[in-house]
Amino acid sequence: MIEQQDLTSYSACGLPYWIAGDVPSAEDLIARTPEGHRDRGIDVRVQHRAVGIDAAHATVTILGPNGEAEDIQYDQLVIGTGASPIRPAIPGIEAPNVHGIATIADGQAIIDRLASGSRRAVVIGAGYVGIEMAEALCRQGLDVTLVDRAEQPMTTIDPDMGELLRTSMVEGLGMSMALGEGVVEIAKNASGLATAVVTDTRSHPADIVVLAIGVRPNTDLARDAGLALGAHGGIITDACQRVLGTDNIWAAGDCCETRHLVTGESVHMPLGTHANKQGRVVGVNLTGGDLVFPGVVGTAASKVCNLEVARTGLMSADAERVGLDHLAATVRSSTTVGYMPGSARITVKAIAQRDSGRLLGVQIVGEGPGSAKRIDSAAVAITLGLDVERVASLDLSYAPPFSPVWDPVQIACRRIATLL
Amino acid sequence: MIEQQDLTSYSACGLPYWIAGDVPSAEDLIARTPEGHRDRGIDVRVQHRAVGIDAAHATVTILGPNGEAEDIQYDQLVIGTGASPIRPAIPGIEAPNVHGIATIADGQAIIDRLASGSRRAVVIGAGYVGIEMAEALCRQGLDVTLVDRAEQPMTTIDPDMGELLRTSMVEGLGMSMALGEGVVEIAKNASGLATAVVTDTRSHPADIVVLAIGVRPNTDLARDAGLALGAHGGIITDACQRVLGTDNIWAAGDCCETRHLVTGESVHMPLGTHANKQGRVVGVNLTGGDLVFPGVVGTAASKVCNLEVARTGLMSADAERVGLDHLAATVRSSTTVGYMPGSARITVKAIAQRDSGRLLGVQIVGEGPGSAKRIDSAAVAITLGLDVERVASLDLSYAPPFSPVWDPVQIACRRIATLL
Repeated sequence: MIEQQDLTSYSACGLPYWIAGDVPSAEDLIARTPEGHRDRGIDVRVQHRAVGIDAAHATVTILGPNGEAEDIQYDQLVIGTGASPIRPAIPGIEAPNVHGIATIADGQAIIDRLASGSRRAVVIGAGYVGIEMAEALCRQGLDVTLVDRAEQPMTTIDPDMGELLRTSMVEGLGMSMALGEGVVEIAKNASGLATAVVTDTRSHPADIVVLAIGVRPNTDLARDAGLALGAHGGIITDACQRVLGTDNIWAAGDCCETRHLVTGESVHMPLGTHANKQGRVVGVNLTGGDLVFPGVVGTAASKVCNLEVARTGLMSADAERVGLDHLAATVRSSTTVGYMPGSARITVKAIAQRDSGRLLGVQIVGEGPGSAKRIDSAAVAITLGLDVERVASLDLSYAPPFSPVWDPVQIACRRIATLL
Repeated sequence: MIEQQDLTSYSACGLPYWIAGDVPSAEDLIARTPEGHRDRGIDVRVQHRAVGIDAAHATVTILGPNGEAEDIQYDQLVIGTGASPIRPAIPGIEAPNVHGIATIADGQAIIDRLASGSRRAVVIGAGYVGIEMAEALCRQGLDVTLVDRAEQPMTTIDPDMGELLRTSMVEGLGMSMALGEGVVEIAKNASGLATAVVTDTRSHPADIVVLAIGVRPNTDLARDAGLALGAHGGIITDACQRVLGTDNIWAAGDCCETRHLVTGESVHMPLGTHANKQGRVVGVNLTGGDLVFPGVVGTAASKVCNLEVARTGLMSADAERVGLDHLAATVRSSTTVGYMPGSARITVKAIAQRDSGRLLGVQIVGEGPGSAKRIDSAAVAITLGLDVERVASLDLSYAPPFSPVWDPVQIACRRIATLL
């Protein structure tokens, strides 16, 4: 196992919660250390970088910490190079208080920066990582401004649901949102520290800037080796996670594209849960097993303070893009029966194909615990192609502390059913 | 609408939470009052009791509050007579501090009894209602003993999962459990008040006794009218909720049996969520629509203090009974990623058919929020007949505050997949 960093197998998803103070130490995020892997008989080479794949001769060229090169023969090769945060060429982005957030080193740098005293944070990018970092910084007592070129946070949900989220983040959580603003520069002081994020609209003062613009698959190595890449720059594999056109090269995780089960399209969805499942498929298959990773329906969930956001399947714009005539219904319900204390408001939007009634997508914005995870029943229903009436009739669990008599996802589907 | 009680459309499921003090008033439990129904143009007759159905002449005989009889003609008849708590003929059961728990009047009687000072409660029956009442009484400061003839609480889960629940209730919550004990008598003092629940094993002192033994469908009316009843005493309908063998008589809710989608058997599963869905199906169909209630997979969830219990599909004994060769796997995981604060232990048992790998059932016992509701993805998967490997590959939501990277239901399915 060749790893260019010092660490192996840690939860990048957990970085915001370490920064927020929920997780006491970076060590808590590490699932398995290099030593842990070695104890299992794996030859782990940290601080080594793979710089070339010669598929014809089945060798990988690696560089050690002092630049020493070595060629390693393989019978089976697994590529798990991941993805890297996008760091656009904005003037001032190199300032030391402009932080990416992808590695434990990034997290430590932010924690150190906060310890030296920061009052105002600007997070560039209002996607999953952006809103999670907004929570982390907010809970560390900073004034937080989220800047995004888009007119809404979370462009993976419809604009009306995004607006709901925006309102809750601004009015409920006191965050500032600078939407529809493109960053043109990061202003610096004489010491070279960033002092403001300057957009095409205005300037947002900042003591710390966090970049959460998204990621790109790390596939230079694969490209140079002539392996199949998709439109999103990810490695293309078959359903067994074998790289297309190869016999003994496999890939898993954020460096891959995968199949969207509703549209059939090849998509890049860099999420830990897919990476983990794909890794299992690779491990089983290259040792003679026969598993498949069927693909994804785009399920994702995120939290910003008390707000929970989740989505699965197609959003309206997706349905339009692929030419599916669709209709939508949005319902407001509660996470538990309304009379229970702690019952929180939950808004569910469902999208269905007009002719067939087939459920295409569901989006959730909830104001308390128990909101996001109910996206899962919708994810299964969408995977199996159920129509909204069928979803409304599913035997989902009910008890007053857990749900209204009708699960809110079912209420939304029932509403669409009346429109068909 | 003929209703023998004073009230209409209230949440019996909410009674334990009213008694616990979570819900301030009985009014909060009422979804729609008689006046609310009348405002919608429904002729509601409360304190009226239907005493006879003459299907040949399409009339219902009702008795008013003063015993006055009236025959009402119908074009369409809907039977929603519900179910009644079982009240076995145990000596002493008529004592005024032995309470059933089915109606708001029952709830009020318990609340009044508690107000007059009770220290020790015995709940007879350790099913859903029993454990919810145990929570309510516990939170009102009483010492609670649960008595059940069965060797475990919640006989709708496997014995090993029941044992887990029992241990948590005894060691975690400090409740007493008198399992495998049949109640033979309720001892009374000179004033006629119950003072102890006497079982075939020992005597459990009690200032208040709550009966939570289960319910039987109220189908005397239907039986007398010659309507189709099933082996469990419930009305038999087709999938449109039309009473079998009739043109214009419909039934919904706890008075009906319904189809189990895994075994194909007719079952009696008196749960509010089914009643509500069946009611919609009846309402739509008798006004010319065409909906079906396909049946159930036995999904249910309950809470006792911090413990959450959920189940769906077949338990091991069910699979044996219907002759499905099966295997099971039990995994211990966490409700969130383990490093998050508030992460709670969750145990998931999955049962699959041996040959096909088809998921047959899932049971959950969790020690914190976010445990029970994840039964829903399993319920959908079981409804659709997915095999465990397919379930393990489903695109369920993940983020550190919501779930481990693999949903615990998927971990259990993955574990079975390795055994197939």
